[in-house]
Amino acid sequence: MSNLSHLDRIIALALAEDIGQGDVTTDATVPARALGRAEVIAKQPLVLAGLDVFARVYRQVDRRVAVVTELTDGAEVAAGAIALRLDGPTRALLTGERVALNFLMHLSGVATWTRRLRAAIADRPQVKLLDTRKTLPGLRALEKAAVVAGGGANHRHGLFDGVLIKENHILAAGSIGAAIERARRHAHHLLRVQCEVTNLDELDQALAAGADALLLDNMDQALLRQAVQRSRERRPEVFLEASGNMTAERLPLVAATGVDGISVGGLTHSAPAVDLSLLLRPGVSV
Amino acid sequence: MSNLSHLDRIIALALAEDIGQGDVTTDATVPARALGRAEVIAKQPLVLAGLDVFARVYRQVDRRVAVVTELTDGAEVAAGAIALRLDGPTRALLTGERVALNFLMHLSGVATWTRRLRAAIADRPQVKLLDTRKTLPGLRALEKAAVVAGGGANHRHGLFDGVLIKENHILAAGSIGAAIERARRHAHHLLRVQCEVTNLDELDQALAAGADALLLDNMDQALLRQAVQRSRERRPEVFLEASGNMTAERLPLVAATGVDGISVGGLTHSAPAVDLSLLLRPGVSV
Amino acid sequence: MSNLSHLDRIIALALAEDIGQGDVTTDATVPARALGRAEVIAKQPLVLAGLDVFARVYRQVDRRVAVVTELTDGAEVAAGAIALRLDGPTRALLTGERVALNFLMHLSGVATWTRRLRAAIADRPQVKLLDTRKTLPGLRALEKAAVVAGGGANHRHGLFDGVLIKENHILAAGSIGAAIERARRHAHHLLRVQCEVTNLDELDQALAAGADALLLDNMDQALLRQAVQRSRERRPEVFLEASGNMTAERLPLVAATGVDGISVGGLTHSAPAVDLSLLLRPGVSV
Amino acid sequence: MSNLSHLDRIIALALAEDIGQGDVTTDATVPARALGRAEVIAKQPLVLAGLDVFARVYRQVDRRVAVVTELTDGAEVAAGAIALRLDGPTRALLTGERVALNFLMHLSGVATWTRRLRAAIADRPQVKLLDTRKTLPGLRALEKAAVVAGGGANHRHGLFDGVLIKENHILAAGSIGAAIERARRHAHHLLRVQCEVTNLDELDQALAAGADALLLDNMDQALLRQAVQRSRERRPEVFLEASGNMTAERLPLVAATGVDGISVGGLTHSAPAVDLSLLLRPGVSV
Amino acid sequence: MSNLSHLDRIIALALAEDIGQGDVTTDATVPARALGRAEVIAKQPLVLAGLDVFARVYRQVDRRVAVVTELTDGAEVAAGAIALRLDGPTRALLTGERVALNFLMHLSGVATWTRRLRAAIADRPQVKLLDTRKTLPGLRALEKAAVVAGGGANHRHGLFDGVLIKENHILAAGSIGAAIERARRHAHHLLRVQCEVTNLDELDQALAAGADALLLDNMDQALLRQAVQRSRERRPEVFLEASGNMTAERLPLVAATGVDGISVGGLTHSAPAVDLSLLLRPGVSV
Amino acid sequence: MSNLSHLDRIIALALAEDIGQGDVTTDATVPARALGRAEVIAKQPLVLAGLDVFARVYRQVDRRVAVVTELTDGAEVAAGAIALRLDGPTRALLTGERVALNFLMHLSGVATWTRRLRAAIADRPQVKLLDTRKTLPGLRALEKAAVVAGGGANHRHGLFDGVLIKENHILAAGSIGAAIERARRHAHHLLRVQCEVTNLDELDQALAAGADALLLDNMDQALLRQAVQRSRERRPEVFLEASGNMTAERLPLVAATGVDGISVGGLTHSAPAVDLSLLLRPGVSV
Repeated sequence: MSNLSHLDRIIALALAEDIGQGDVTTDATVPARALGRAEVIAKQPLVLAGLDVFARVYRQVDRRVAVVTELTDGAEVAAGAIALRLDGPTRALLTGERVALNFLMHLSGVATWTRRLRAAIADRPQVKLLDTRKTLPGLRALEKAAVVAGGGANHRHGLFDGVLIKENHILAAGSIGAAIERARRHAHHLLRVQCEVTNLDELDQALAAGADALLLDNMDQALLRQAVQRSRERRPEVFLEASGNMTAERLPLVAATGVDGISVGGLTHSAPAVDLSLLLRPGVSV
Repeated sequence: MSNLSHLDRIIALALAEDIGQGDVTTDATVPARALGRAEVIAKQPLVLAGLDVFARVYRQVDRRVAVVTELTDGAEVAAGAIALRLDGPTRALLTGERVALNFLMHLSGVATWTRRLRAAIADRPQVKLLDTRKTLPGLRALEKAAVVAGGGANHRHGLFDGVLIKENHILAAGSIGAAIERARRHAHHLLRVQCEVTNLDELDQALAAGADALLLDNMDQALLRQAVQRSRERRPEVFLEASGNMTAERLPLVAATGVDGISVGGLTHSAPAVDLSLLLRPGVSV
Repeated sequence: MSNLSHLDRIIALALAEDIGQGDVTTDATVPARALGRAEVIAKQPLVLAGLDVFARVYRQVDRRVAVVTELTDGAEVAAGAIALRLDGPTRALLTGERVALNFLMHLSGVATWTRRLRAAIADRPQVKLLDTRKTLPGLRALEKAAVVAGGGANHRHGLFDGVLIKENHILAAGSIGAAIERARRHAHHLLRVQCEVTNLDELDQALAAGADALLLDNMDQALLRQAVQRSRERRPEVFLEASGNMTAERLPLVAATGVDGISVGGLTHSAPAVDLSLLLRPGVSV
Repeated sequence: MSNLSHLDRIIALALAEDIGQGDVTTDATVPARALGRAEVIAKQPLVLAGLDVFARVYRQVDRRVAVVTELTDGAEVAAGAIALRLDGPTRALLTGERVALNFLMHLSGVATWTRRLRAAIADRPQVKLLDTRKTLPGLRALEKAAVVAGGGANHRHGLFDGVLIKENHILAAGSIGAAIERARRHAHHLLRVQCEVTNLDELDQALAAGADALLLDNMDQALLRQAVQRSRERRPEVFLEASGNMTAERLPLVAATGVDGISVGGLTHSAPAVDLSLLLRPGVSV
Repeated sequence: MSNLSHLDRIIALALAEDIGQGDVTTDATVPARALGRAEVIAKQPLVLAGLDVFARVYRQVDRRVAVVTELTDGAEVAAGAIALRLDGPTRALLTGERVALNFLMHLSGVATWTRRLRAAIADRPQVKLLDTRKTLPGLRALEKAAVVAGGGANHRHGLFDGVLIKENHILAAGSIGAAIERARRHAHHLLRVQCEVTNLDELDQALAAGADALLLDNMDQALLRQAVQRSRERRPEVFLEASGNMTAERLPLVAATGVDGISVGGLTHSAPAVDLSLLLRPGVSV
Repeated sequence: MSNLSHLDRIIALALAEDIGQGDVTTDATVPARALGRAEVIAKQPLVLAGLDVFARVYRQVDRRVAVVTELTDGAEVAAGAIALRLDGPTRALLTGERVALNFLMHLSGVATWTRRLRAAIADRPQVKLLDTRKTLPGLRALEKAAVVAGGGANHRHGLFDGVLIKENHILAAGSIGAAIERARRHAHHLLRVQCEVTNLDELDQALAAGADALLLDNMDQALLRQAVQRSRERRPEVFLEASGNMTAERLPLVAATGVDGISVGGLTHSAPAVDLSLLLRPGVSV
């Protein structure tokens, strides 16, 4: 039960900017009553994500289009394989194509990239590969679902469902201790308080002030190991997240420091789109 | 005079998904009446794009925030340089930070990537580096402006302001000739008709049927050269666009074939975000 | 595949302004469970247009109303004939009546008027009878479809899908040549450039600057003939549109000058509504 | 204090359908920073209406445009006279022109037409010239204000602020008496009940059942006179409205029958637009 | 045929504020495909109201949920009895529970409270128990329907469908006579004019000026009796409404003064919610 | 930085349902250009809440209205005292009155009721008086702010920012242990998991499964004391909330059991509105 009206609005915006006053080409070249079948083909190996939004796009374009697949988000699709099939009015199949594919190509790109990074730390399943709030505007919920489809885990959704005190907040509050104390008082009892720290001194302050979780930002592996050890000794229940400059190469080294999770902004803001094509099947009219 | 209400809606969706019921951390740690100054710093060399949407985000968050910069979209910013400055209520500066940066990082990423590809064909300024409709849902107008800021040129905006007959349309219409003839009749007199062709036989058909522009899809350089020559001989006024598998390495070779434009989906769907940070300036309260 | 959400919004506005907090009369006088049948009768000879929007109005009022007709937009209906039939909850039939008829009476008025003017130049089928952007606010797409139903042809839909340089633009740009050159550079390659000219000198300038189409504004027939001849000699592919003070009487004379199209603002802004009534059929409860 | 958000929505729809993704012509030909002055000139004698919505259109296009006039709705403007003046960014002046004029031309057309019909019964100022619910979708409030500007009077706004029992309601309720009685019971105590009657027998029934007002539909003058006399004798306080086939010629005759008001659908659904032009003033840059 | 889009919007707002980005608890604990049955149980004796909006909430949450009941608004439900039953996806049953119940508990509270006050004047069925415009923001139409379900009657819906001149208007207009005269002239002929009076002098003025109804505000029973007598003598058709400080104890005394109606703001703004619970039936999966 | 667009929407809905097509009475009786001053007077002692939304209502009605007060939410106002003052166009003052007051009367009612219950446990300031999700549809954020203004504390805002496992979830999951374990795995690391328990056995299960907080539902004081003791012994960091049938009389007894918080649905769903009036000041025109 997610935020459907948000989803319907972003789809509507995407359709509006693409279709506008009408699809001149399709309306001219395809008979109004023609029915057809189309297939979406993977042009490269990929991890699927966004099947639901793909179908919802077509539901806004024309409710008569049926989107059929046996796959679910998270499935691996080989190059050349059929990811899904569509039956319906041919005009609708073509008019909705670009927007539906734009969602699917981006979200599967996020899932594919997440899967690859997850594989880099496959030997440490207990370490969470976390997303961030560095998402593309309007697409956060979809991208976060794609991260899960790829094997990652979600951080808080936004500013409203978790407290994460960063450098700027500490500056405004005056000190780590003041910031944590105020957050503890202000937030309701079901929200935990996490605090960003960049060195051991800050870590000590945050632990002393009662942080429930720490963001170990931009630390190298040596420092991370020290931070983990120090935190576990004092308050073993505190959740430890590492962040900053994470690459596929560096991930296993960071995971080995003993942190509980590693967050990677690039999962959502820089995953390259995967290549998918929609092709009408000639001679098939359903 | 662009589509402002579309822009305001995508901003509103982005703010809604991030802020939701409120920014618990900032509301707890920053006094309600505090005023502050923040700077947005480039963490890598980049081409700026999205300054206007960045400012519009803050206008929705809190009209009292002033966004100041001497730069304009398209400006190159060195690593470590200040891209812009913000003055206003400290809470608003922090609450709007992520959404505003998410726009700026992505759009500057598009501009930076476009600038790099444009540079690859710098010796042929008459060849247009074109975007496509493979844009991220909701962000098309912004991404297309970022392409221009990076030195590229825009293709049609969507399905409504140009006719582009592709493989699927030809299949539905029965032939290239039939598709072009129908499009010519259906479209009003201010729209040109472009047709995708993948070999010389299709090119001949499209030229004969009166296409105003051709999309030379997935041809290698040798075939592109033949296609250009043939088309120029018969109908020199026809616009020739090459597309398919364009990389920075291949671009100069394609440009050398004599085409009028080269379209690259990756300009918009796979440009990596650039890194920008927003930092409060300690001790400055405006 | 046209802009459905726009259509649904204008319908919603029309229903809101008419129904508001409820139809006091119908709710009082008609039992909640009553089912009925109604017929829409033409009170004068007319050309139908707006059948789809008529049905969509009822879909918003109550999805159970079935709108049935064998006619399609463009059909000629005799005085006294039944244009369409409705079956459904009697309350919904009556509550939706006015808004549904308001659309149908206006749009059929546009189609009827277009048909009449089209008939005036029936001997020159190659000359297009064009609409303009002088449409009633919110109703453009519907009115343009009604023009087509009446036998006319559409000009560009709006400011976004065609370039039409008018007197004010020329004034702002400095000259016809400057305006056309800038438009050519700014517009993407699938948009043609049309320029308004009012005498032969301006026509020469526009042809020399490479206009793809001309708007011959407020010329008398003699001048139109000269303009057509001069344009055909120099650049036969240029589209020639006449406009200004077109009446049913003058149309054949203008058509005879050899222009490609004639645009008439009155098709949409001043077509009188046709008279249609909705009548419950006594004793029929479906 | 009218329904501003409704008004802003219909303006937004009108701008969206005209401007869409942007005004290609103006953006190309007019420098972004140019300021200018324009005048709106009456091309025929007319009664102005819609000044406020004209200005609101420009407020949505660009808040910097100032609309200045000494006239108010209802003013008579001679052919060739300046109706209003605009100062602001030249691009905005041109991009908003068509939508702003489309409102003004239609609404002034309604006011001009109303003024003309009102003049036809100038000797009977106590007889109201009433509008109906036969308005153009989305424009009701504006058209009703234009009717008032022209010298007419408003009937109920919609189905929610008055009870008007028509033929179809009577059919559904079984009898005039039953319909009026149910309406009286259902409606709150501040709403009057009006009933349509087409002959003296129905009139007797409606008066007996306690109708507060009557709609004398499609009666000729002789019958109207009888109806007025009969009604005044029995229940002098009942409001009498004549309707059906009203022309400028017939209006004085109907007014002479002694009715309280005459309603004319054509005031709103068939008033021809008046001709107005917007012209940039050369050499003026404000 | 009421204002459905208003209703759907308030439901959407209520769901948005409760569900936001998703129901973390239900999504975690209930399998996605589980189907279940739930019952809504009255925890106290109550009068039901809001069944339709309850079902519409679930329609927005998940169209597959079926809401079944043999009761209708206005039914009395004993403590412990089942008010309605729901079948559908278990997740949807739980995610929609709170919002659906919040509507039902409040609206049934209004109906229950109205029923109780109505009972206090059961011996005078001709006296209307009226609601006011003191409703909770966004819920007016629902609350007014609940008042009717409880046995009350509706006053005007809002500022648009009735004229009610109050102390502030009289002050602004200068006198009761001036206010009534202006209102009579301004309002269309289907709206009655009501005027607030607080003593016999004002009552005389209002009667003389032609008020159609009077609001006898804050008068004690003795004064009310005098006012009724005086008004009946002079203009027996005038509707008399008493208001101000009405309690269950005082109502019968006020009703005995002979007024036509008594309005009670507390019907809508202060009715305590009734207690209802939604319980899954263990072991039932439909 | 809360959810402003939500707030603006609920205000817009409230204004739409009250004003609709216009305020007939005010437009008739008050001159368009009149300026005036009004005061809002407390008719009973109360705790103010909703000042901001009161002002925002007027901002939507007419931006020229200035709302002035030296009070802030949470202030106690004596009967007869002036709560705030308004200056602006008299029409706007009157047209916005009812909606603005409806918000203020309800929200101040919530704050007043909360203050009274808070006073009942004034001797135990460390025990939180908590609200619930039993709020009026659309008003949650406003009501929760009013609870804080009255001295209460907020529970989670909705289903998205905290995990609260209730009886129905446990039934669906199979056991308390299963439900808690799944919630722990599904929720991100900044959300705590709370579980409803109704007896000591369930409490044991929930503590063993790792719940971060418990909802002690419908326990009498004796059982509450046992539950508190048992929980503190085993896991002292667990937050303990009591709920069910809380009255002003019972609150001190429950607070004395040692729980951390007590939640009371009636704070929001059944707080009676307080009485406030808006009065024009005669003779003052600003």
